[in-house]
Amino acid sequence: MQKPADNQYPIHELLKQRWSPLAFADRAVEPEKLQSILEAARWAPSCFNEQPWRFILCRKVDADAHQRLVGCLSEGNVAWASKAPVLMLSVAKRTFTHNGKPNRHAPYDVGAAVACAIVEATQLGLVVHQMAGFDAEKARTVFAIPADYEPMAVIALGYIGTPDALSPSLRERHLGPRSRKPLNALVFEGSWDTASSLVKQ
Amino acid sequence: MQKPADNQYPIHELLKQRWSPLAFADRAVEPEKLQSILEAARWAPSCFNEQPWRFILCRKVDADAHQRLVGCLSEGNVAWASKAPVLMLSVAKRTFTHNGKPNRHAPYDVGAAVACAIVEATQLGLVVHQMAGFDAEKARTVFAIPADYEPMAVIALGYIGTPDALSPSLRERHLGPRSRKPLNALVFEGSWDTASSLVKQ
Repeated sequence: MQKPADNQYPIHELLKQRWSPLAFADRAVEPEKLQSILEAARWAPSCFNEQPWRFILCRKVDADAHQRLVGCLSEGNVAWASKAPVLMLSVAKRTFTHNGKPNRHAPYDVGAAVACAIVEATQLGLVVHQMAGFDAEKARTVFAIPADYEPMAVIALGYIGTPDALSPSLRERHLGPRSRKPLNALVFEGSWDTASSLVKQ
Repeated sequence: MQKPADNQYPIHELLKQRWSPLAFADRAVEPEKLQSILEAARWAPSCFNEQPWRFILCRKVDADAHQRLVGCLSEGNVAWASKAPVLMLSVAKRTFTHNGKPNRHAPYDVGAAVACAIVEATQLGLVVHQMAGFDAEKARTVFAIPADYEPMAVIALGYIGTPDALSPSLRERHLGPRSRKPLNALVFEGSWDTASSLVKQ
């Protein structure tokens, strides 16, 4: 199943095909694919080249670790994400290593690194769905994450599955249309709230 | 000039080729390329599909707007970034639209959207260099950015130029090697500081 973007201007096929499904197949992800996905994150750009991204990988083949991360998810997410063969927690280092000062760009850079990982995953035939719905402080305790690091998102990764096993409400979300704000609500030119002639509709 | 990643595991060619140069050519970016780059950002994933990304576009063809954003940059960045034909300010909406509560994932999601835009730009033969070195509060004033929105990064976009016009120190940065932490410093498995067998080196 695919659910390509209904894009108004042409975009790269991988960006068009990427989406966040709720149904994962009961199929492990090959280690070499995971290596490429993590390597893609590694080469993302970051402020002062700080590389503030960290990942805690919890694969279903290690049932204990997988279950520990599932145990941090909100109930609504457990219902579908516990089926994903790979769960990862993305974590942001809050301070710069070179001077210890707060790095307000750390979450931004971690988000960018994960986006690069998702492009790689899409290229490799995998799907990714990130979740904010988890208990970050519980994750900090369960995984002994130091105070200087902030748990950001749980990333479900795997092969797409059939929606048959989903509850009716999840199936509806999985199958429903994708929507985005129009570009002229997102892109201003020269000053705030001035629509760009580039994206006038 | 190219400066591909020295990647340890295979990654998509666009991710391998992406880098952040300091030399921009004196050549405008075609409007249709900008449209595709912004459209790529538009289709990024976000928490609650909030789409917290906003962009203020300042093109050199509109000298006033371009100069206003250049005027927010740190001196070190003015030296090279003022040559870029397109500057954009990325902005994050701090709260959720559906309930007005703080959205701690907004910067993460804006970073992801910009990463998607960069993949598209790379595909179109363009280069991108983001900067944290700018006066965010000055940008807020200059562009009348509302309190609920946070200026995140200035994005320089264009065609790559020759390093001849760069100062010796900038040229050195432009031409110097790229470096990244090893994957086993970034990826843990099952718990914090436990290296994953996937990325043992």
